[in-house]
Amino acid sequence: MPESALRIALIGCGTVGTGVARILYEQAESLQRRCGRSLRLSRVVVRDTNKSREYLPDGIPVSSSIDDVLNDDSIDLAVQLIGGTSDARDYSVRLLESGRDLVTANKALICAHGEELFQVAEAAGRTICFEAAVAGGIPIINAITTALPGNQVEAIEGILNGTSNFILTQMLTENQSYDQALKLAQELGYAEADPTLDVDGTDAAQKLAILMRLAFATDVSIDQMILHGIDTLMLSDLEAADKLGYRIKLLATARLNNGQLEASVQPTLVQSHRALAQTNGADNIITLTGSALGPLRLSGAGAGQMPTASAVMADIVDYTAGRAERTFQAILRNRTAQPLDVLPQEASEHRFYIRCIVDDRPHVLADVTDILGRHQISISSLHQDEPVDDASGDPTARLVMMTHRADEGRMRLADAELGQLDCVRGDCLRLPVAE
Amino acid sequence: MPESALRIALIGCGTVGTGVARILYEQAESLQRRCGRSLRLSRVVVRDTNKSREYLPDGIPVSSSIDDVLNDDSIDLAVQLIGGTSDARDYSVRLLESGRDLVTANKALICAHGEELFQVAEAAGRTICFEAAVAGGIPIINAITTALPGNQVEAIEGILNGTSNFILTQMLTENQSYDQALKLAQELGYAEADPTLDVDGTDAAQKLAILMRLAFATDVSIDQMILHGIDTLMLSDLEAADKLGYRIKLLATARLNNGQLEASVQPTLVQSHRALAQTNGADNIITLTGSALGPLRLSGAGAGQMPTASAVMADIVDYTAGRAERTFQAILRNRTAQPLDVLPQEASEHRFYIRCIVDDRPHVLADVTDILGRHQISISSLHQDEPVDDASGDPTARLVMMTHRADEGRMRLADAELGQLDCVRGDCLRLPVAE
Repeated sequence: MPESALRIALIGCGTVGTGVARILYEQAESLQRRCGRSLRLSRVVVRDTNKSREYLPDGIPVSSSIDDVLNDDSIDLAVQLIGGTSDARDYSVRLLESGRDLVTANKALICAHGEELFQVAEAAGRTICFEAAVAGGIPIINAITTALPGNQVEAIEGILNGTSNFILTQMLTENQSYDQALKLAQELGYAEADPTLDVDGTDAAQKLAILMRLAFATDVSIDQMILHGIDTLMLSDLEAADKLGYRIKLLATARLNNGQLEASVQPTLVQSHRALAQTNGADNIITLTGSALGPLRLSGAGAGQMPTASAVMADIVDYTAGRAERTFQAILRNRTAQPLDVLPQEASEHRFYIRCIVDDRPHVLADVTDILGRHQISISSLHQDEPVDDASGDPTARLVMMTHRADEGRMRLADAELGQLDCVRGDCLRLPVAE
Repeated sequence: MPESALRIALIGCGTVGTGVARILYEQAESLQRRCGRSLRLSRVVVRDTNKSREYLPDGIPVSSSIDDVLNDDSIDLAVQLIGGTSDARDYSVRLLESGRDLVTANKALICAHGEELFQVAEAAGRTICFEAAVAGGIPIINAITTALPGNQVEAIEGILNGTSNFILTQMLTENQSYDQALKLAQELGYAEADPTLDVDGTDAAQKLAILMRLAFATDVSIDQMILHGIDTLMLSDLEAADKLGYRIKLLATARLNNGQLEASVQPTLVQSHRALAQTNGADNIITLTGSALGPLRLSGAGAGQMPTASAVMADIVDYTAGRAERTFQAILRNRTAQPLDVLPQEASEHRFYIRCIVDDRPHVLADVTDILGRHQISISSLHQDEPVDDASGDPTARLVMMTHRADEGRMRLADAELGQLDCVRGDCLRLPVAE
């Protein structure tokens, strides 16, 4: 005899929620075959109950209060698709404590309150699924939790923010300034009205923290990461890197370095032929390097209605099939592993790209290179184009230098001294070069 | 109270089996944490019991008879890592019927006898896992069975044979002939002494058939696929394609075409900038296109000791955690879907690359293009280099043509007529161009 339908409450029914409702409607037969029981959308909670919504079953109760879910004993699973961390945290705790399992796509929630929610779920014997919280439709949580158990994960490297990747792609391919590309991203819906969290690297750092917790059983806060956004990049930087054989990508990296963990999110020069460099527009890519497997690359749509809904559905089916509970138990058990030490930021080593805008007058090059030399930073190449006049008519030159390997600590000392030089206009830009 | 250890029998302990034993030994603590119980290698069956083997637990019974596993009631899981389809099928049936669950890396077995084994497993209430049977360490079975449940799979496209990809990469980058590159592949252990199944496309076709069964719930035999190997390619073909902006890859493709399924394994021209074209050496890559997700790309090591052992371990842990049973039940249920019709090979449409070696004399070009024109095949570009003398001193020319879209049926009729022309030396080569 078939089991009765799984009853789902949808909390938040915006873009992704509507995508989930659409898949539940359009793929009902195939989903039932895969799950061994039917999936029924039984209740929807939204802020504005007057707005008309597509794909919802006829007569389904739509209310604006989470209490309607908490008081409905027939609900098995809460699919929570609201943003922010305040209501989302509060609802999650109450849902778990009331005996509901939880699917969420909220990376800020899992990053900031994941450990607390895991404890609540553990105490209540519930399950949390969050595939859609990282890299949209790409099954990266699935890969990291189920595909690599025979491996020590050695590195996670990737493009985790589609908005900034869209902007960088747009700048280089369409010769646009950062501001022009950002404006287009906003018009096309790739960037929010306030794009801060996307372009300053926070969004990617939150996702990286979630992946690191799963891969290394270590909580690394965003404050512990080297974190830089794309908002200081100029089109001329992307073009200079291109000439040198690199693309600049907002790269999220976590790496085991002699038993210590280093983590960063920063615009990074990546050799142009690499799959990472060729990942354009709003796509995401992640490379997981395992001790047995070597590098495993996954790439695809990192955001968007249907790709994200696809990830949410994977969680719903995983849950219904009884797999999610077992995966979550393994995640809970894995937290008992010895956490790794985090490498001090200053010890992180890379080759670097340095760009300075300087006055076009004698001894400038000597002043700049003297500072680098005194900090034992060795220059591997240097390019200076013909000077151009600044707004006041004074000639300025653009210096682009590539260094040999140097550590972040020395570079920061040099950065500070370069900033003190009279001949240097504004801040120099410094970007690492991917291995 | 912790559950008792899971007891594993290893049947076949060659390269991959030794890798599995190594992971069980080196990652024991982490595996126990993930599984909630320890994994114990309890018995090994090999052909030659005298050969010394690394990483096996002290005192473990090593025998040459499958009966020793069948008669040992303490064994929970049989990890069968032998090749071929005769013993492997026989052992699998007996293991399943005796109540043992099965992990296998044998693609030929699953391709040829999968449906039979699934029925035996279903009747016996057992589980079969086969992640390592396709694409080595890449978790493609996992992705196709658990990451896309909200999607109608629309296409599977990829490089599934590392040996032929190594040979093609080697030819182009090192200016080697097919025979030279094959010889190197054999020396490096990438190719067997008899490389037939790798280079004629059979191996990739077996893997594609397994993926299609999971993605489309349809059994497509290798005979139904358009199947060509890489053994008719010349270095000059790879170079000509390169000049036109393409790489030639042995591409396995399954695609929904107006509700019908088309499937092929053949050397194919792929635009040089695509991730598919940039997949070099023994790596594999697969793109799954889902109705909601769009294209999802996975790439990594398609073969080799530790990557394949990593996939076997993923199955062992999936089984121990209780997930594999649920995934396998879903696979069994999915077989009840209505199978899709297979598109007749003649109806498959592509652009094509055609290379002919012809006599260097008047009217040859007219004869060749007349045949194509009469079959409504439109030429989009044509290149003829200066003639070179053949072994007898007669001048011959190499014609390379790119066509507009044409169907396989017309092309086969044209192929046959081209082969009849006196001026054409040997067979012309015809390769499709990927979309």
